Parts: sequence; C-alpha cells; structure tokens
Amino acid sequence: MRAIILGSSAGGGLPQWNCGCPHCNAARAGDGDVRARHQSSICVSADGERWVLINASPDVRSQLAATPELWPRGTRGSPVRAVALTNADIDHAAGLLVLREGGAPALYCTARVEEALTDGLRILPALEAYGAVHVRRVEPGVATPVRDRDGVPTGVSLRAFTVASKPPPYMAGRHRDDPRGDLAGDTVGFAITADGRDEALVYVPGVRDLDDALRAELCRARCALIDGTFFTDDELVVMGASLKTSRTMGHAPLTGPGGLVEFLDGVAGPRKVLIHINNSNPVLRDGGAARAELAAHGIDVSHDGMQLRW
Amino acid sequence: MRAIILGSSAGGGLPQWNCGCPHCNAARAGDGDVRARHQSSICVSADGERWVLINASPDVRSQLAATPELWPRGTRGSPVRAVALTNADIDHAAGLLVLREGGAPALYCTARVEEALTDGLRILPALEAYGAVHVRRVEPGVATPVRDRDGVPTGVSLRAFTVASKPPPYMAGRHRDDPRGDLAGDTVGFAITADGRDEALVYVPGVRDLDDALRAELCRARCALIDGTFFTDDELVVMGASLKTSRTMGHAPLTGPGGLVEFLDGVAGPRKVLIHINNSNPVLRDGGAARAELAAHGIDVSHDGMQLRW
Repeated sequence: MRAIILGSSAGGGLPQWNCGCPHCNAARAGDGDVRARHQSSICVSADGERWVLINASPDVRSQLAATPELWPRGTRGSPVRAVALTNADIDHAAGLLVLREGGAPALYCTARVEEALTDGLRILPALEAYGAVHVRRVEPGVATPVRDRDGVPTGVSLRAFTVASKPPPYMAGRHRDDPRGDLAGDTVGFAITADGRDEALVYVPGVRDLDDALRAELCRARCALIDGTFFTDDELVVMGASLKTSRTMGHAPLTGPGGLVEFLDGVAGPRKVLIHINNSNPVLRDGGAARAELAAHGIDVSHDGMQLRW
Repeated sequence: MRAIILGSSAGGGLPQWNCGCPHCNAARAGDGDVRARHQSSICVSADGERWVLINASPDVRSQLAATPELWPRGTRGSPVRAVALTNADIDHAAGLLVLREGGAPALYCTARVEEALTDGLRILPALEAYGAVHVRRVEPGVATPVRDRDGVPTGVSLRAFTVASKPPPYMAGRHRDDPRGDLAGDTVGFAITADGRDEALVYVPGVRDLDDALRAELCRARCALIDGTFFTDDELVVMGASLKTSRTMGHAPLTGPGGLVEFLDGVAGPRKVLIHINNSNPVLRDGGAARAELAAHGIDVSHDGMQLRW
C-alpha cells in the first residue's frame, strides 16, 4: 500500500490568501526553511494504478498536476477512482467542484457529511448537473471495499471511526438535540488497508478529543497520519489572528497537558507523522526547535509529495 | 488603470484534472510551447494598492500567491478589497469559498448571480458562518463605484452590461418563464474605469451572441478582453471529449461564419485580447498557426501574469 501526501497544510494553505505572518511570507518568497504547502489531502493505492483521494481540497487541480501518479491515462479519464471525506469542511470538500468535468468520482462519506454537502453547502446537487453523483454511505466501524463509480473495486478498503472534533462552521447550530454530539459522524478518521488485509494507515486530519478509542486505533496501525494543526492551544490568540483556541476550533494542540505529543507517547507501534499543519505552527520551519522537539518524541512532519508505504 | 491576468484558461484550467489531450500533457510536462494556465480571473486597480478581483476562480489561492501586488500587507489583510462576478459559474465563483478567513471581501454581482449562489450552490450562506458577507447588487447599465466592505471607495468603477451566454448548468431549467431569457443577468460583461473616467477595459469572459450592443461596448473601449474559449464550434466533438458545441456551451467560437474573429474585424479602436481559453483550443500553442491567424487580425492571446494598462 502506498500513500502520497498531496497537501500537508490546514485549511487556508501555506501561504493563506490574507495572511502576512512570517511563515506565509517565507512560503511566498520561496524561503528554503518554510516550504509552501497545499491544503490537506492524501491519495492511497494498492496497485499504483487505481487511486483513492482522501479529502478533496480546493487545491486539488494543482495537487493532481504536481503528482505524476495521478495524471490522466488516455484523452479523458483519471486514475482517481473515488474520493472519501473525513468531514464536510470547505478545505476538505470544495475540491469536489473541481472534479466535475467528465463526472465526479465515486464519493464515500458518512450520512452527516452527505447531509452537510446536500443541505448546507449544495455541492452534491450542483455536481448532479454535470453527471450522476455516486455517493456511498460510510458506516463507522464497517470495513468498506472502495469501488469506482461503475462498481469496480479499487483494491483499497476503508474503515471509518468517529472522532470528536466539530461540524463545519456552516453547519453549526444544527443537530443540537443529537445525543451523539460530536461523535455523530460529522468527523471521522479512516483505517486504510488493502482489501482483506489488516495492516493499516490510520488517517485523522482533525481531532479534538484524544481518547481511549483513538489510542486503540493508532496502536493497531502501521502508520498514524494525524492532526498537527496547532503547536499550542492559544497560538492564534497570541499571534493576534483570532480569539479562538485550538480546541475551540476542533483540534487538540500538539503541546501542553493533554496535547497530542503527550498522547502519542502512550502509543506504541506505528510510525507517527503529522499533517494538517496551520500556517501559525512553528513546526513548519525545517530545522527549527519545534521540529526537534517532535523528533525527540519520534514524530515526523509530513510535506507535500511525501510518500508512505505500509 | 492596471489589470493583471490571474488566469487565462477556461473552466477546468490547463491542465484540467482529467484531461490527457496534447495541450494538457504539455502543460503538465512543462513543454515550453504550451504554458500552464489558471482558470480565468483578472484583478484591476486604479492606484496599485487597492485591487478588485473580477471572478474568483477555484485557483484563487495559487493566483494570489503568484502575484506580489496581491500579497498581504501586515499580519492579516489583503489588497483584494472587493470581488465582482460576471456570472455564477463554478469556475468563476467557487474561489469565494477560499477567501473566507478574516471575512470575505465585498461582493458585486447581479440579482440573478446572487440567487444562484444563495439557492443553487449555497456559497453565500456558507460564507456567512465566517463573517458578514457584503453583497452589493450590480444593475446593468449603471456605473457603480466599487467600495470595500467598510464602504471605502477603491477608485475602480464597474458598469455591467448583459450578454447572452447561458446560466450555470446547476441552474439550468429555472426561470423558464422569464421573457428576458439569456439577457436576464445570468451573464454580464464589465466596462471597467477609474472613478469618474470614461476610458474602459471591457471584460467579457463568456458570450455566445455577438450582437450590436456588444459591438457598441467594444468600440468605446480602450481594451477588449474577451471570450476566446473555442477555436471552432465543434472542437470538443471532433476531439471526442463531448457532444456539445461551443455555442451550446454559451460561447461564440473564434472562427467560422459569425465567429468572434469576424466580429472583431468590425470593431475599430480597442486593443483586442482573448481570455478564457479552453484546453482544446489550438491558440494555446505559442508560435502556432492558430496564433498567427489571430495576429493577422490584430488579436492577442492573454497569458497568466500579463499586465494591461489603459
């Protein structure tokens, strides 16, 4: 099994359109220490020919163009046979609008994500105007062989598991009476395997609550590719960019009590790699102190174009 | 007045995600004769400091990052003070979703475009979750000084005029009973001037019917930046990519009887530049025969990063 990191940044990307922080400025200027990054997305394949995109970022056109494995074969057609979504955030779903010519790939998502993209941001009804949209419901806990829109298997299986983060802002306020709360399927992680195999890449680009269920998922994995959005809980507040904390925005911070680094110290087994890095996060600087702190805990930071095998 | 071409391609861009035609393959490979192109968008400014984006393509993050004039000043903020839309096509409007952090710029569009982005593809309601959206209605025929979201003038004025093209596919079938038909405001062109001045850049990235009203607009302009989507009416049919003709898709072809080249021969005065070039169009090849044919009629083809002054 292979994965290619198509985007390692959080929503907004690096550089973010309206951000003049030192990291974004360095990325614009081509400073060697802070590399430009697309918004988070990966692609996975069992055979190197049929690929499944996990999340469709607004940068997807540029991401596919930068990745020879995903270039079309023939006059029209794409090795991207299906798309699976971990949530309905704009930075994970808006790219579906870009994949419309020739008809969208098969789409795998939870009922809650489908509802958000049908009633909240009407991406799925809009795509119907360009060709039938094949939505396949993902049920948390059930291993699902991923098939293309014609029903042909891709060789990739996904098993979703719910994680507590938050619904996308445009869906805030709905479902207030749902007793499942943040575990209702607004956000999931995926255990990604070859059909019929157990060795998994676990992909969790957004998670706030680091609980026993998540720990068990990660301990079973070969590789954990997980939410590294913010280094500290009050990072945006200190920078003056927002009044929101990391946890308010649905992400466990890396450091501090109850942070991801502490949590991952209790996870034995998998390779540990961060993704979905916000432009404010000091781990973006190659060779910096924050990166060294992670390395001391055996944690890597992904970059665009990085390849993983398991 | 200045304009920068941020994207010179039609929807789908060059390369398009699923297209393996010779032009897209050359753009991916970095072939010097066919340059990669973002999806169509321009920015205009009267003072070089305050910019108005005309259409927000899905590529907008990459387009802003490639354009130093549009880089943020200070920690957060953007020289992009407003966005104006010529229609509600996905390739002209989906980029609004990218411009959400910190609140969207002021938005100028017709009532029909606002309706499409509110009831069709619910981009505007979704953006409200990130901050107030300031939509200012554009009335065809009325010169409108463009102001930022706080009401501060940008120094740029827009006068919209309706053109016959077609509503976006996701709105097809609505308004069947509107006697104004294709001139109801689903698609407009803009005459762009400095506040209080007459010298105009006329921007028309999509038009099917080349009529007397359009000719009159172009004859008054200093520069005409106009729809060069397809070279021939049956270009996509011949290529095997679609059963649709250029006119069916809402665009006058460049060549043949009633085509744009013939029409522009009857327009004296302005500089003539093409934009919104589809990946199938032979004018994409620098130094090719199609480009020479245009040059013989005094017509240029725009490219990403091109600057216009008037």
